[in-house]
Amino acid sequence: MPDIKILTETELRALVPLDLSLVDSIEQGFAALAGGGVEMPPIVSMGIHENNGEIDIKTAHISGAESFTVKMSPGFYDNPAMGLPTTNGIMVVFSAKTGQVEAVLLDNGYLTEARTAAAGAVAARHLARAEASRLCVIGAGAQAKLQAEAIHLVRPLTHVTVWARDLAKARKAAESISNTLSVEASASETVGEATQTADIIVTTTPAKTPLVQKGHVKPGQLVIAMGSDQDGKCEIDPALVAAADHYVPDRLSQTRVLGELRAAMAAGLVSETAQFPELGEVVIGALPGYDAATSLTVCDLTGTGVQDTAVATLARKRAEAAGKGTSFTS
Amino acid sequence: MPDIKILTETELRALVPLDLSLVDSIEQGFAALAGGGVEMPPIVSMGIHENNGEIDIKTAHISGAESFTVKMSPGFYDNPAMGLPTTNGIMVVFSAKTGQVEAVLLDNGYLTEARTAAAGAVAARHLARAEASRLCVIGAGAQAKLQAEAIHLVRPLTHVTVWARDLAKARKAAESISNTLSVEASASETVGEATQTADIIVTTTPAKTPLVQKGHVKPGQLVIAMGSDQDGKCEIDPALVAAADHYVPDRLSQTRVLGELRAAMAAGLVSETAQFPELGEVVIGALPGYDAATSLTVCDLTGTGVQDTAVATLARKRAEAAGKGTSFTS
Repeated sequence: MPDIKILTETELRALVPLDLSLVDSIEQGFAALAGGGVEMPPIVSMGIHENNGEIDIKTAHISGAESFTVKMSPGFYDNPAMGLPTTNGIMVVFSAKTGQVEAVLLDNGYLTEARTAAAGAVAARHLARAEASRLCVIGAGAQAKLQAEAIHLVRPLTHVTVWARDLAKARKAAESISNTLSVEASASETVGEATQTADIIVTTTPAKTPLVQKGHVKPGQLVIAMGSDQDGKCEIDPALVAAADHYVPDRLSQTRVLGELRAAMAAGLVSETAQFPELGEVVIGALPGYDAATSLTVCDLTGTGVQDTAVATLARKRAEAAGKGTSFTS
Repeated sequence: MPDIKILTETELRALVPLDLSLVDSIEQGFAALAGGGVEMPPIVSMGIHENNGEIDIKTAHISGAESFTVKMSPGFYDNPAMGLPTTNGIMVVFSAKTGQVEAVLLDNGYLTEARTAAAGAVAARHLARAEASRLCVIGAGAQAKLQAEAIHLVRPLTHVTVWARDLAKARKAAESISNTLSVEASASETVGEATQTADIIVTTTPAKTPLVQKGHVKPGQLVIAMGSDQDGKCEIDPALVAAADHYVPDRLSQTRVLGELRAAMAAGLVSETAQFPELGEVVIGALPGYDAATSLTVCDLTGTGVQDTAVATLARKRAEAAGKGTSFTS
């Protein structure tokens, strides 16, 4: 039996920081998805109802890749009251040649946070104006800050506005972003004020009713909606989704049931059979005449198994090169 | 962050041998499934086609239980040519209170083998004649031997006949069973000869065309079919399934697509809406007047997530009590 490598969150944070090489790896995953050489079964979701919890399981295999990953993400919504984080996670990396377990990544959800933020950067790189420098962040949680960090890698920012339901939290998030990125950052009292001068608007909340309305946005802006990843969540006015010049899902089969598109379809504003170029297709050139300066674009990110396989493969390769992790023979 | 326990195959084999207490745990899992307090999403299957491989992912949560399990089972059919086993596996145990990872079971598929064999014993305990002592095993692989061991726990055997396509392998399996259980065991040259005097017939092959025909069986016999767990597999003549006095699936929604029932439905011999009592329902009393001595019964086992959660919970509890495993803080 070959060795199985166990990697801890601390090791994984050091091995896979949120940087341009991670953004590139995630972008390559999306490109592979578009190329058609990816197996990606539907997400499995199981409720643990008596404890207000759930677990999502995602996997994907990129044809020809040496390994593939199964990612398990529990979300337990009563955890904060016990002083524990809501989300958690573990990834298992398998050899695509033999099916043997190669590595167990005890990342506590870190790799999911990082690959989710990196997808925002992929969207900004391909869909935002080249000179975009002003970001609006809706939400004040961990992803709010990580999205700002990730987008700053591909569109160097000069100013960030933050809106959250709790103004105090928005102020704290703005301060944190300002310190981390050395940019101006401020909290806004209304969504409209926050979005007004932004080139890119990223929504990072678990909202179930729309926060960003059609009247809050205008041509030339890119809206990246990454909060909705479940039936019932919705951050963006369905009328805004319908009015966008371009709508780009990470995976259309997922956004129809889990993303902003679901609410727009439910409202009868988008046809259930409407086709849209996926983010990976955009990466490989599906929008040749795309003009970011005049387009109102919505990118709908629900999170894909191919991102998990991409980030886990990167982690495993770097761990091997650096001799990190603890080996188990079993 | 709480400690995560890593357990190796060697530790798990010692902690969870194939014994009556394991059979009881698996039986309790089936009973919970019948009681309706179980969440069990459909099995996820992903092909890794370029390497003739696949991975199945199963999970289940028994309402009120302290933990639940996600089981990943790769099957890579070119492995034997490389001197590696076809199947493999790993289980992850999560707290049902917080979703935190409690244990990673590096069992290389052992726990799946054990819980699969234990399900055969549950079927024999509830569906075979009380005085059953003669077993026929179809197949000569690892499960052939384990099913004999498991059934021997609930119906002490005096004689075992083995049939396999390769008579030499059947002879070797018979010898191994004879040595392990201290019973008479012999290889048969034909399926009909092997089944003729058996009280219980267990099929353990990956066959795609039926091996056990209607003419091979008679009233008073119990057929446990555990080989078919995928669309396309089939060990039992559809006419036999249709002619049985009792047909008992482990999970009807699974046997309709993965089990012997699939082929019987495809042949038009069983209606697609036909209802049957599941094994767990039989455990809690769904067949009150059942007469094993006069019934021809088929039990169709495809493998359920609730078995994985049951065996993993047992392993984790025993590991904790015995202070086994390696702790990781991540």
